[in-house]
Amino acid sequence: MPVTANSAVTTSTVPISLGERSYSILIGEHLISNPLTWQGLKKAACALIVTNETVAPLYASRLETALKPLYDRVVVLSLPDGEGFKNFETLNLIFDQLLGIGADRRTVLFALGGGVVGDMTGFAAACYMRGVPFVQVATTLLAQVDSSVGGKTAINHPLGKNMIGAFYQPDLVVCDLDTLQTLPDRELSAGLAEIIKYGPIADMEFLSWIEDHLDALMAKDSRALAHAVQRSCEIKAGVVGADEREGGIRAILNFGHTFGHAIEAGLGFGVWLHGEAVGCGMVMAAHLSHQLGLVDISFVQRLTRLIARAGLPVQGPKLGAHVYLEHMRVDKKSQNGQIRFVLIDSPGRAVVLGADEAVVQLVIEQCCL
Amino acid sequence: MPVTANSAVTTSTVPISLGERSYSILIGEHLISNPLTWQGLKKAACALIVTNETVAPLYASRLETALKPLYDRVVVLSLPDGEGFKNFETLNLIFDQLLGIGADRRTVLFALGGGVVGDMTGFAAACYMRGVPFVQVATTLLAQVDSSVGGKTAINHPLGKNMIGAFYQPDLVVCDLDTLQTLPDRELSAGLAEIIKYGPIADMEFLSWIEDHLDALMAKDSRALAHAVQRSCEIKAGVVGADEREGGIRAILNFGHTFGHAIEAGLGFGVWLHGEAVGCGMVMAAHLSHQLGLVDISFVQRLTRLIARAGLPVQGPKLGAHVYLEHMRVDKKSQNGQIRFVLIDSPGRAVVLGADEAVVQLVIEQCCL
Repeated sequence: MPVTANSAVTTSTVPISLGERSYSILIGEHLISNPLTWQGLKKAACALIVTNETVAPLYASRLETALKPLYDRVVVLSLPDGEGFKNFETLNLIFDQLLGIGADRRTVLFALGGGVVGDMTGFAAACYMRGVPFVQVATTLLAQVDSSVGGKTAINHPLGKNMIGAFYQPDLVVCDLDTLQTLPDRELSAGLAEIIKYGPIADMEFLSWIEDHLDALMAKDSRALAHAVQRSCEIKAGVVGADEREGGIRAILNFGHTFGHAIEAGLGFGVWLHGEAVGCGMVMAAHLSHQLGLVDISFVQRLTRLIARAGLPVQGPKLGAHVYLEHMRVDKKSQNGQIRFVLIDSPGRAVVLGADEAVVQLVIEQCCL
Repeated sequence: MPVTANSAVTTSTVPISLGERSYSILIGEHLISNPLTWQGLKKAACALIVTNETVAPLYASRLETALKPLYDRVVVLSLPDGEGFKNFETLNLIFDQLLGIGADRRTVLFALGGGVVGDMTGFAAACYMRGVPFVQVATTLLAQVDSSVGGKTAINHPLGKNMIGAFYQPDLVVCDLDTLQTLPDRELSAGLAEIIKYGPIADMEFLSWIEDHLDALMAKDSRALAHAVQRSCEIKAGVVGADEREGGIRAILNFGHTFGHAIEAGLGFGVWLHGEAVGCGMVMAAHLSHQLGLVDISFVQRLTRLIARAGLPVQGPKLGAHVYLEHMRVDKKSQNGQIRFVLIDSPGRAVVLGADEAVVQLVIEQCCL
């Protein structure tokens, strides 16, 4: 992709290879304002930018200005901000807007925001007239390294996170590193959790690199962020390309997520950030891996230290083991009521396994002091 | 498929060829109770039968009994009956039930009913945990010849019919002709509308056959019904196999539906049956085809006579042309605000075209006396 702005960071492209559903992730600076970013999109009469109240004042008009030469009509819809709003009521606001402006089935939806905006906009795009094109413009670190890539879209149900959704691929993912400069520290840390995740499941060299560059990442150094986003997307692209609909290997991307979802659901969605719950969930999953004899305690300690350094919680909330277990049973990986966990088989390699509930309970009690 | 019950009608199978999403339509008598009908389905712990208050007392326990040997748990969910309930609230009842029983992502959903049950159950299956298997057990003529075949699922929005949905293919479609014996006359006629549709768009010989056998069809003769269902499914299978996601030719299956949707939306969903609106809509679309010089008036008259004989309305409700036009503009075939119609190019062949609104208005006034 010939993006030629005078960037300190060179724009890079990570391809996602999914046959006719293939697309690119663009990673770089000043991408939103750069007309070259958008030049490859399909023609349409109308574009809808879906964003939230926090992101809208920062970037909505920048994106709107960039898109206006391409569409007769560009409309901005700002949703309330937060995981607590990732539900049917908010999703319906997108449909109401689309039908209100008479959007046809060529209309392109732009998700401008983090994981919540991306999940809801992607799901709305999957369902509106049974499918319209959409573009992820990821403005949080978590969205850039995880949620905007791979085509998982969903909303929450009171009885479970991401229970209602679709596999639906975007036409393009844009990771403008500039947007990370306005990201609150807490959300930066939440994104680091998903970056750290790629180490134990796939690439221990990358884990070492993160250990060496964590200070630069937390200081929002663009070059460090560019590398972290690119390497994360490359690893995710490889996994998703091999298993788009999570029939097998893709489940390893959920390392830390089984315990993490239980924390989010147990506390009520939105109390902990998703990345915070995943950070703590990885500590718990590492302990479980250790209890099952898969990894040394030194590996668990190394991972825990890094997660703590990244500003993430490493001890779970005291919900009681039965609350954790109850929420984990409705996890999408469960089969016939048995909870299945993504565990570290050996550092750099993950497996999906069931585990004895007594052992799981022990780990929960150990990790929730 | 080796279904060997002692049937007066031989069970037939129509294949839908869509690569890895291929499946079969079974057409015959006594299929629900026959264990052979279900033997090819994937193994799972749990099955959810979604039906409605009208169909449940007639066939739910028959299906439940047939499925019990195959699943540890078979649950029946009965929804309120009618197009007016094809909305988010009712859809959520399915998700509530699935999460309430701890259904995992192998759970099979069975849609036992007509088009409304099939559309909602299919859409729920497409979205629950981003996709679980489902089976259409079509109990109305309309569902057997049209809505259960081809993977279109959807719910209505107050601003438009079938606006929120997914292309999602079932694992199996079962058309048990026995269920048509309990079908009210009005719904039988509604199904005949979709059968008649296949004549003008694809097969004028079939139209002649319908003219010759309409009395037998209306008397619910099993052999006549079996042929009508089979030929309809064959034609639909050919069209859907060529264009699964309605990029082009599939739109011809919407003959009569553009005017028909306007009638349904204009009167409020559920006042006219979908098939009634389509019947009348075909008359209007035929008149528009004539006005545009595509077909003789004798063809329009022939089609109108058959539709009237089938017990269907051939005059539209007097909503005012502007109400029709307003509703037709939100049709999914519209592009940049221009309404597009499925028209008969020559008998047996359909095209999708835009039309001058003045001509459309004339047709509306002509057909809504």
